[in-house]
Amino acid sequence: MISTSKPVSASRSEMTELILPNDANPYGYILGGRVMHLVDICGVMAASRHAEGYVVTASIDSMAFLRPIRVGDLIVLRASVNAVHETSMEVGVKIWGEEILTQRKFVTGSAYVTYVHMAGPDFRPTEVPELILETDEDRRRNSDAMERRTTRLALRDALRKRAR
Amino acid sequence: MISTSKPVSASRSEMTELILPNDANPYGYILGGRVMHLVDICGVMAASRHAEGYVVTASIDSMAFLRPIRVGDLIVLRASVNAVHETSMEVGVKIWGEEILTQRKFVTGSAYVTYVHMAGPDFRPTEVPELILETDEDRRRNSDAMERRTTRLALRDALRKRAR
Amino acid sequence: MISTSKPVSASRSEMTELILPNDANPYGYILGGRVMHLVDICGVMAASRHAEGYVVTASIDSMAFLRPIRVGDLIVLRASVNAVHETSMEVGVKIWGEEILTQRKFVTGSAYVTYVHMAGPDFRPTEVPELILETDEDRRRNSDAMERRTTRLALRDALRKRAR
Amino acid sequence: MISTSKPVSASRSEMTELILPNDANPYGYILGGRVMHLVDICGVMAASRHAEGYVVTASIDSMAFLRPIRVGDLIVLRASVNAVHETSMEVGVKIWGEEILTQRKFVTGSAYVTYVHMAGPDFRPTEVPELILETDEDRRRNSDAMERRTTRLALRDALRKRAR
Amino acid sequence: MISTSKPVSASRSEMTELILPNDANPYGYILGGRVMHLVDICGVMAASRHAEGYVVTASIDSMAFLRPIRVGDLIVLRASVNAVHETSMEVGVKIWGEEILTQRKFVTGSAYVTYVHMAGPDFRPTEVPELILETDEDRRRNSDAMERRTTRLALRDALRKRAR
Amino acid sequence: MISTSKPVSASRSEMTELILPNDANPYGYILGGRVMHLVDICGVMAASRHAEGYVVTASIDSMAFLRPIRVGDLIVLRASVNAVHETSMEVGVKIWGEEILTQRKFVTGSAYVTYVHMAGPDFRPTEVPELILETDEDRRRNSDAMERRTTRLALRDALRKRAR
Repeated sequence: MISTSKPVSASRSEMTELILPNDANPYGYILGGRVMHLVDICGVMAASRHAEGYVVTASIDSMAFLRPIRVGDLIVLRASVNAVHETSMEVGVKIWGEEILTQRKFVTGSAYVTYVHMAGPDFRPTEVPELILETDEDRRRNSDAMERRTTRLALRDALRKRAR
Repeated sequence: MISTSKPVSASRSEMTELILPNDANPYGYILGGRVMHLVDICGVMAASRHAEGYVVTASIDSMAFLRPIRVGDLIVLRASVNAVHETSMEVGVKIWGEEILTQRKFVTGSAYVTYVHMAGPDFRPTEVPELILETDEDRRRNSDAMERRTTRLALRDALRKRAR
Repeated sequence: MISTSKPVSASRSEMTELILPNDANPYGYILGGRVMHLVDICGVMAASRHAEGYVVTASIDSMAFLRPIRVGDLIVLRASVNAVHETSMEVGVKIWGEEILTQRKFVTGSAYVTYVHMAGPDFRPTEVPELILETDEDRRRNSDAMERRTTRLALRDALRKRAR
Repeated sequence: MISTSKPVSASRSEMTELILPNDANPYGYILGGRVMHLVDICGVMAASRHAEGYVVTASIDSMAFLRPIRVGDLIVLRASVNAVHETSMEVGVKIWGEEILTQRKFVTGSAYVTYVHMAGPDFRPTEVPELILETDEDRRRNSDAMERRTTRLALRDALRKRAR
Repeated sequence: MISTSKPVSASRSEMTELILPNDANPYGYILGGRVMHLVDICGVMAASRHAEGYVVTASIDSMAFLRPIRVGDLIVLRASVNAVHETSMEVGVKIWGEEILTQRKFVTGSAYVTYVHMAGPDFRPTEVPELILETDEDRRRNSDAMERRTTRLALRDALRKRAR
Repeated sequence: MISTSKPVSASRSEMTELILPNDANPYGYILGGRVMHLVDICGVMAASRHAEGYVVTASIDSMAFLRPIRVGDLIVLRASVNAVHETSMEVGVKIWGEEILTQRKFVTGSAYVTYVHMAGPDFRPTEVPELILETDEDRRRNSDAMERRTTRLALRDALRKRAR
């Protein structure tokens, strides 16, 4: 019943939210932490759809907040699985702001989040379906994800050496 | 700067949400009122995108809740503008549930909501761009919306007569 | 222990809420979806009290939003069971706005919501107590509910024919 | 336009809420702080209605939580103005739990909250209408409020002496 | 494994929150009920840490709101166990406001809340560890708590006599 | 009035929160996005206190979620400013879980967030006070922050080259 392999397109997820007053600082701009919360929810959706099960967030790569979004405007997030590694998946999430009055859209950031598929009676890491790369875009993202994984592991080692 | 006519596709909106415990009754099923709240948010997004401005909800047609969605699963909503009438728009919103563990998707309802575009210093009803119907689907929905408008006005008259 | 019949007055429910910033659009007016959420919560209370058990929302009739309510003002909702049909109940909910500074009250809408009583180990539709009509008002509302049920079923048929 | 005197009944306020998961501790019982939040909202409504303006919470008397309420059940609050003192009002709030499945109602506590009416360009304490006592119940509550005020001032003095 | 006695310092708890729009009235000042909610959460943390288990709120002493805090500023709460009585604990919570732009801090109130430790299969009141008083401050607070307990019991008796 | 230099200790911030049902997935573990939201709020507090003004989140370094926290337990966050660079600050946030029933504490992650101080009529990046390093710990963290800044800029360059 569980798929053994699945195309990227099968788990692609999109979310749009209206920015409400409680999402913002006193100047009316969305809080960075609120953006990260939405990034994680959108990433959880893509990863759960690919894994056909529950997932937990293992790590998030560094991300920058390029342009703030205002109360009353929209935030749009799109997530897709870039690569899988046995029980884990790298999900890329792209974030746009969209101004209601001008209909202008602008990229506000992107994030790479790693999820682990958890299942079974003791809720343990569990294998996920293989990822079928159908388009050139899929292949480019997968190869970028592989390089990021290398850089990430190297960075982790570098940071670990200097952490106490 | 403001568009004078716009295709249906330009304002189509999609929202996906993870059902959290506070969205549900003690049996773990999503509350009808929470569904209606999401229907309105998704409809506001499509209507605001078409009108290029703020909108208020004028009315909602009758809607049925066909199948409940459980905590931990997803609700997916898709909204598009079906018809415009000077300052108002009928937006159709279709609602699906999606079970994480089985990846089964099922229609849980659909709604027709009417929004009025508000603008200017005294926040008054304001004209919206005309709607360009590009596909057969667009045309079918538009003609259905016209019939619904007729039925709706007739129903309103019927109900008014018997209301005191 | 469970009642076999109950007067309308036994399940009448009233709710008052202060409109907070997150309930509103950028112009400070309550969102239609928030009103619908409160209508459902108030209706659930009346239906649960009549059924002496948990209920799910089956459908809502068309409703109009006559006048918006502002942040800082009050919304008042009153719900009562109008009619019962074996396992389901039609609940009428009337909605007022109340301005704090002027103490003016105004009707902002009304809604008719149908609930189904769910009970037992497999959470199935379950009969509800009969409704005792005590006053002329109770009888008028019951007979209106019966007519609405007829119109509703006819409308549903009409809409189904033209839905694909 | 502003009233110079008003009966107790004109500002009486009632609120009913469904207890949701986020209102409760891991055992499914409502948090004391959530009850206090609702007591204050209900008291604000009664005080605002009497004052015909905005109010701030000045103090709350000691209150006990007699019996907890469970997720899925109802909390009912009723507030009325007991006494006025120039710019302030003592509001009494009585709190019930109501079990959906048994329709049993039980008192879970009561609170006495003091509000100050704030108005004008610099948001200063402002006089409130006199309170018209119409029933024996109104008079009993008013005289109890006067005694509580005496006890309260004495207790405050006693506590102040031993506070540093 | 469960401690038989614990110093005050072992359960001291501190909480800081950013005041968001939904926490406030239309003038931008924090609602009294929101402060009480945070007081209870902070008190629950100190009491749970001392008891090494779940607690329920039994009662709260009278408290005054000395100075309001504005949206965008911080509220800081510090809670410590003042005294224990078999299965219950008096927790003192002190509340400050802190203005972001001026870095001014000001006391906005203090509260004394009584918690009962609940445990076991039927969730019954259960003994808590004894309290080790280490500093003069600890001893002063403990002796004040004892006096408050006396005053509180006397006040309760006085109020009960006049309650009907 | 605005400080020209400030010790690390002056802006150190601590937050403790009780994990509520809405913060968690269906297995009762806190959502990664909720942790990130709290990390940002705690970081905003430390950065605002150091800058004596409002701040926006510019970027967050990669972070790992080492161990999940359960509903009903506590999350503790501690933030301090590690380094300042004209208008920006690196804030380090350390995150612990704390189990109520066992009083066990465990590190669940740490994050490095960069904030920019915004002020003036057009809300522009504005200088922040210099950072006074008082302890060896302060100096170690500052030198680590400098290395992280180098690695971060190098990583950003590397990623930019391969981004399209």
